[in-house]
Amino acid sequence: MAITVVGSVALDTIETPFGAQDDVLGGAASYFSMAASLYTGVNLVAVVGGDFPDRYRAYFAERHINQDGMRTVEGETFRWGGRYHLDMNTRDTLFTKLGVFADFDPVLPEQFRRSPITFLANIQPQLQLNVLKQTQSRLRALDTMNLWIDTARETLEQVIRGVDLVLIAEEEARDFVKTPNLRAAARAILALGPRTLVVKQGSYGALLFGADGSFFAAPAYPLEDVRDPTGAGDAFAGGFLGYLASRIEAAGDLTPADYRRALIHGNIMGSFACEEFGLECVHTLTPERIAARYDEFVRFTHFEGSWHE
Amino acid sequence: MAITVVGSVALDTIETPFGAQDDVLGGAASYFSMAASLYTGVNLVAVVGGDFPDRYRAYFAERHINQDGMRTVEGETFRWGGRYHLDMNTRDTLFTKLGVFADFDPVLPEQFRRSPITFLANIQPQLQLNVLKQTQSRLRALDTMNLWIDTARETLEQVIRGVDLVLIAEEEARDFVKTPNLRAAARAILALGPRTLVVKQGSYGALLFGADGSFFAAPAYPLEDVRDPTGAGDAFAGGFLGYLASRIEAAGDLTPADYRRALIHGNIMGSFACEEFGLECVHTLTPERIAARYDEFVRFTHFEGSWHE
Repeated sequence: MAITVVGSVALDTIETPFGAQDDVLGGAASYFSMAASLYTGVNLVAVVGGDFPDRYRAYFAERHINQDGMRTVEGETFRWGGRYHLDMNTRDTLFTKLGVFADFDPVLPEQFRRSPITFLANIQPQLQLNVLKQTQSRLRALDTMNLWIDTARETLEQVIRGVDLVLIAEEEARDFVKTPNLRAAARAILALGPRTLVVKQGSYGALLFGADGSFFAAPAYPLEDVRDPTGAGDAFAGGFLGYLASRIEAAGDLTPADYRRALIHGNIMGSFACEEFGLECVHTLTPERIAARYDEFVRFTHFEGSWHE
Repeated sequence: MAITVVGSVALDTIETPFGAQDDVLGGAASYFSMAASLYTGVNLVAVVGGDFPDRYRAYFAERHINQDGMRTVEGETFRWGGRYHLDMNTRDTLFTKLGVFADFDPVLPEQFRRSPITFLANIQPQLQLNVLKQTQSRLRALDTMNLWIDTARETLEQVIRGVDLVLIAEEEARDFVKTPNLRAAARAILALGPRTLVVKQGSYGALLFGADGSFFAAPAYPLEDVRDPTGAGDAFAGGFLGYLASRIEAAGDLTPADYRRALIHGNIMGSFACEEFGLECVHTLTPERIAARYDEFVRFTHFEGSWHE
């Protein structure tokens, strides 16, 4: 199995100017798994409560997501509630009920430890560090958030030193390095050890920085209807790493061109995640629709290499 | 002569976290002219006071910018003062002294009226409308700002109906159409008549929308040192329209590929404008440095058209 992901599986309550829904399947690991499963096999490591609905287990099963690492314990599933403002770019958190997630202590089943890629979704850096010690993956990647930059900076720095790839939102990269200049922030993060840095810019796309000084930039897909941006960054990570996993399976190794295409797939999955409530759009996605959107990306980003003719 | 530009020539006082300077050459038409002059001949229509320094006339003359339409009248040149915050993305206007610019009544010299491109830089929409009546250009373009969207909306709409191309900052496009969705904003602006819309996104790059439904997106150049973003949008317009003018001169007509490459040249000139105080960087620029940066754009944006190999 190609990717192991460790992170949150949650039940989200989401309000947007276009509607509201209670207890939809959410959490970083859910979005990541559903997106990555369109490219490769996924091992999910998470914890849920006794109240976790069977229909969401069926979502994962339909996509052949391995749930052997998803523990069900007594108590309530992690719940999050958020309300989006009219511009859909800003949101308020209405509530966070950690439930059984408060005691999450991820243990990787033996057969998960050798998957080529492990993704440490946004959880407490100490837990990410514990998972790092359990895995023999060739490509170890992490995501994080402002909360950990503010409250667990040293541990976070330690995890970053231990991974090969960091995925981070633009403003978090600036905050972590304390510089307004993104290129300077990228250099400082890569100096800690990772070979690759992916900066997520939301509706502006994403950037890829290599420790070898390489750089690649891709704009976002121009969405007409943004119905719910929840989980877009996690779906982005699923598309990005899922595509890389599929390349490892097909070719045994990764080229710089693979990383560039992976960034496009990240943008593609991020865009699909925004088009429907919760995971709905990613859930119904087909390889044909991904391929069609990839072709659109080619068409709307390419220009002639020579400017003289 | 290929481009006629009508707009402000000013003396700027700029404070940034990295230094401050008084009375540097500024104004939209100055930045536009200096940038466009690297690609084509430029006719400048503006007004300055008796205090306008000869050394700035020499700047224009060095670049063969035709100053026959720049009137010098009794009084003071337009002065603007601004202070940038640490992140360089936000600034406060410290003062605006319109001086002789308050009575600007642009009259195009006869030989300027048939230039293939006319650019109405950001000035009062009524003045833009007056200029439109004087020109026979095949490509008429305008820029604008929030002030006119708020105070002269109807006249602005009238000018937009009369031009072929609109250049506008992202947040202004949203404000003008009153929608958070950029794609919807673009469609509404194009429905007024222009064939082409360019949306400037600052450090995120630029977008090109065609009335035929075509779309192109280009990320910005990743600057390590942003010393002064003043005039970057006007330099962008100069690179974009200057390149188009050079294509009209060379080929007699414009292709969709020309517009895409023009957007890259807009980003290039915008990036150079940010690298030094005032117009310094654009002033010392050479075609070789533009070509080298174009090649960098090709390298950091291109990816394989097929995602399967």
